[in-house]
Amino acid sequence: MARSKPKKASSSESHVAPGRRTGRIPTWMQPYVDAVWGLRNHWYPAAFSHEIAEDGIRGVTIGGENILLRRSRGKVHALKDECVHRGVRISAKPTCLTKDTVTCWYHGFTYNLSDGKLFSIVASPNEQLIGKVGIRTYVVEETHGIIFIYLGDEGRKPQPLAQDLPPPVPDDYEHRTGYILGKNVEVLGIHRKCVGNWRLAAESGPDPGHVLVHRNSALILSQDIGLALGEARRGPKSIVVDEKDWPRGVYKDYDQMDFVMENKELNIKARGTKAPVAVRVSLYLPGVLFVENWPIYGMAQYEFYVPIDAHHHDYWQLLTKICNNDEEREEFRIRYKHAWEELALKSGFNDDDIFPREAMESFYEDNQRGWAQEQLFSLDELTIRWRRLVVKYARGLQPPPGSFPAGG
Amino acid sequence: MARSKPKKASSSESHVAPGRRTGRIPTWMQPYVDAVWGLRNHWYPAAFSHEIAEDGIRGVTIGGENILLRRSRGKVHALKDECVHRGVRISAKPTCLTKDTVTCWYHGFTYNLSDGKLFSIVASPNEQLIGKVGIRTYVVEETHGIIFIYLGDEGRKPQPLAQDLPPPVPDDYEHRTGYILGKNVEVLGIHRKCVGNWRLAAESGPDPGHVLVHRNSALILSQDIGLALGEARRGPKSIVVDEKDWPRGVYKDYDQMDFVMENKELNIKARGTKAPVAVRVSLYLPGVLFVENWPIYGMAQYEFYVPIDAHHHDYWQLLTKICNNDEEREEFRIRYKHAWEELALKSGFNDDDIFPREAMESFYEDNQRGWAQEQLFSLDELTIRWRRLVVKYARGLQPPPGSFPAGG
Amino acid sequence: MARSKPKKASSSESHVAPGRRTGRIPTWMQPYVDAVWGLRNHWYPAAFSHEIAEDGIRGVTIGGENILLRRSRGKVHALKDECVHRGVRISAKPTCLTKDTVTCWYHGFTYNLSDGKLFSIVASPNEQLIGKVGIRTYVVEETHGIIFIYLGDEGRKPQPLAQDLPPPVPDDYEHRTGYILGKNVEVLGIHRKCVGNWRLAAESGPDPGHVLVHRNSALILSQDIGLALGEARRGPKSIVVDEKDWPRGVYKDYDQMDFVMENKELNIKARGTKAPVAVRVSLYLPGVLFVENWPIYGMAQYEFYVPIDAHHHDYWQLLTKICNNDEEREEFRIRYKHAWEELALKSGFNDDDIFPREAMESFYEDNQRGWAQEQLFSLDELTIRWRRLVVKYARGLQPPPGSFPAGG
Repeated sequence: MARSKPKKASSSESHVAPGRRTGRIPTWMQPYVDAVWGLRNHWYPAAFSHEIAEDGIRGVTIGGENILLRRSRGKVHALKDECVHRGVRISAKPTCLTKDTVTCWYHGFTYNLSDGKLFSIVASPNEQLIGKVGIRTYVVEETHGIIFIYLGDEGRKPQPLAQDLPPPVPDDYEHRTGYILGKNVEVLGIHRKCVGNWRLAAESGPDPGHVLVHRNSALILSQDIGLALGEARRGPKSIVVDEKDWPRGVYKDYDQMDFVMENKELNIKARGTKAPVAVRVSLYLPGVLFVENWPIYGMAQYEFYVPIDAHHHDYWQLLTKICNNDEEREEFRIRYKHAWEELALKSGFNDDDIFPREAMESFYEDNQRGWAQEQLFSLDELTIRWRRLVVKYARGLQPPPGSFPAGG
Repeated sequence: MARSKPKKASSSESHVAPGRRTGRIPTWMQPYVDAVWGLRNHWYPAAFSHEIAEDGIRGVTIGGENILLRRSRGKVHALKDECVHRGVRISAKPTCLTKDTVTCWYHGFTYNLSDGKLFSIVASPNEQLIGKVGIRTYVVEETHGIIFIYLGDEGRKPQPLAQDLPPPVPDDYEHRTGYILGKNVEVLGIHRKCVGNWRLAAESGPDPGHVLVHRNSALILSQDIGLALGEARRGPKSIVVDEKDWPRGVYKDYDQMDFVMENKELNIKARGTKAPVAVRVSLYLPGVLFVENWPIYGMAQYEFYVPIDAHHHDYWQLLTKICNNDEEREEFRIRYKHAWEELALKSGFNDDDIFPREAMESFYEDNQRGWAQEQLFSLDELTIRWRRLVVKYARGLQPPPGSFPAGG
Repeated sequence: MARSKPKKASSSESHVAPGRRTGRIPTWMQPYVDAVWGLRNHWYPAAFSHEIAEDGIRGVTIGGENILLRRSRGKVHALKDECVHRGVRISAKPTCLTKDTVTCWYHGFTYNLSDGKLFSIVASPNEQLIGKVGIRTYVVEETHGIIFIYLGDEGRKPQPLAQDLPPPVPDDYEHRTGYILGKNVEVLGIHRKCVGNWRLAAESGPDPGHVLVHRNSALILSQDIGLALGEARRGPKSIVVDEKDWPRGVYKDYDQMDFVMENKELNIKARGTKAPVAVRVSLYLPGVLFVENWPIYGMAQYEFYVPIDAHHHDYWQLLTKICNNDEEREEFRIRYKHAWEELALKSGFNDDDIFPREAMESFYEDNQRGWAQEQLFSLDELTIRWRRLVVKYARGLQPPPGSFPAGG
């Protein structure tokens, strides 16, 4: 998956700068405001591979849908986690009687892993319903230690997983960074349930104006990382990646940026003695952050903001690195486990990113007041481009839970 | 209260088998779906006798109605637990100044136990309101250690309590079982607040297909009870008890049943080496389960699923036994206390019945989706007959709380 | 602020006695029922002076509005606690970069304390928005150790604080009592968040019929205070204080009262051997209680019931005393700290007043049933006069949160 550098934003999109606050939601933005439950027909990470052992069962909730994951003969299967009979979550009490099925713990409704069809009922082997009803399945792809699910309409052929991930960095880019689907790339990380709608989390990821929350982060202080106060733009806008059959996203073009090193009126200067970090930060549909050369050169951080329900998201934080042999892999694991997990992904840095999402939740999600009343400013240009991209290219909006028939 | 054996279901009711799932609530079932808060003009257990000592006060909530119980001179009185003045629960701070009244702790509004009329006000003895307003009373019947309340319209003459209880077992039945209102019958048990609408609890009681949840229950394993996988029907349907001036209910006729001892496709066999248990299980309005010869021959279990609010029920579990003298009574009490309470009513068996009610609650009660989307199967025939019985014979539906005037 | 004694209630207002319960809200009372979130354009206490040190920041919520308080150069400033940008509470992470501004911790939006205008943005010093947008400010008055806020429309000139407080006691009154704004008056106390809408709290304050809840209060028993059962009226009604440019309120005129010392039917007598307490109790807009000569002669108690949200109020409890020199002040503080705080304001007395507010909340605030169904009686005459006063003289009703634009 190698391409030429993405085109710059076309001129027809150049007037997206933050405007006057009118107290009304702009017409174009309505689909984004409606995307409360996430995007439909997109790939989302559902679990780490190590979270589901052979014959293991795990229930997850993505975009309000309860999904059951089961590994059998090495392969992970995903089915709607709701028995057709009385609607209980099948994963609530894992029950497996054969390698090819999963059984509901309540009355023994047993479904094929392959197609979700009702294969038998423990309590009634000759039931007429058998073979006639079932629960839907989901397409699964497991790679690099992550189990991805296609949260799509049943029967729809999924786009390649790579189209819902940040693309590999072009070869001409200064630093090689571990592409999440790349060969010899090791992926380590965590995920956790956080307060806040997924959109607030996604927008906060690449936000060029939020550096103040990291001013006292341990990672910044201990590494003496140069942290600017903000960014002033000297050239055109953020770069929009918008090509057919390719991931859609936005990123900040640091070639066009000046860093704000001092705010004299407020008597505050950039943190750190080292040169300001010029990490490239991008955000792709359906909500995947890519931070190149972070927390140090040669590594990369990916984040997913997976909608759980209207007010919570599953916050995925991954660090990647190219490891060419076992020794390098072991070295990366040791450093991840003993340094970067805490210092980059938890208390040392990213925990400071979780606080704002919780803080915005009430403003945006109580009566959706925030979408109409927010007062964006110049550094939100990236956020607006992101929203437009979602409006234009989301393959659908995830409907609220309960919109689908049981099992189906 | 002895009768001939109940009639079999009439032919006009034979086509109640579970049908195709349409995603809509069947028209006939709507009143059942509306019975969220319980049934009106029926008897419900409110407390054990030992829970209200002389002069004691206890506040309970049945079908969303707050009810105050007070025992005075041995007799238990029940009144609406809401002062006419400012609506507080009178039981919140028990205050009794005379044997014949109960006093609200706030301003001293004092009501007759006999008729609920305002008898005096502590702070204003000459108040004009006295004798003119009041709180409603409820008819109470206390028997066999249980205080029953008629949750009926004020002034309505209650049917006999026995009509809202499973009837005594006909003399020709194989095993004598302690009828809850019978002479020399000892009743012991517990009650507790559980998650789940009362209907989900009631339906799960006699459900012939739910045995899987008990497969590893300590009672089954320790007693080596033969537990079939399910039941196949060879003859007609469940038996409906539908006679004038008699309890209305349904039960499984084991004379017409084959037990499922094995499911070869799923490679699972019935539990236990003893012959399958042929306990007769029945469910009567307004939601009373009767399990004959359970947990052992010669005893019986009764369960009440008393609606508290839309999402909780008071789960009553009683064991009964005929005890002809003090020695037999003492023996029953010892065995109940040290064996059957834990082994039959709690962790050893019935706790496994509580889990499914909680598991169904979201599917049925969030937007009432489950009532339209459930996919019933052959073993639910009993459930459907039960629902039809409720629709046909419930003396009313309990309205949501707040539908009545204060006090009245 | 000294005046002649207030006029008695005019005859046109005399027919406010509690009437028949109709189950409907009286038309005149609707604005009071709508005053869920408090009164608009009135003064409320926001914090004690000692709760905000120099450069300190404190976020409070009054009538559903989040307000930020900051002290700088001794003076307390109040601003809307919601950043115009993305609506977070600025006080969530106090950030101050200059003496004249307060900075939002998220992107560094920095507002003037004086007028709320956007002064700078940390991350973008040259932003065009600067000076053009802002957050509203509130008028603050700090006196006697309390920071008062005018919860009014922006730009509206506030009435003097004294008009929203109980007026000083006329000179001809029997006992001198520390007027809260008086010279040499020391004010000590606490405030705490309690369950219950502010109106239920305010009405319970001067309620002449609620003495039963205090019958076993430690203050009553330890001081052997004579506590009548209630009050019978011999003459005209409660006194309404209704003069132009003067606080509006109601109080009980003890010259017209007989105390109920015994209720023979209920066999209960007044508590204590001392003469019944003849403390004058009054309630003024926007919800301020004044209890003269309480808990002992020569002291006074003030209470504020400040709306936080629809179901909670900030319960302010103050004791005042004239202290003419440091020695008297020190003496008062010692007695307050070691005796009166616990005995009068907490477990010894006022905690018994908190219970009823919680007990009424469900009746009144679930579907506002109580306002239609309450059955008032003669001793509620004062409550009705209070409600009429609010309907007539409230300068506005506080709208629900989210009715205002962000920041504005």
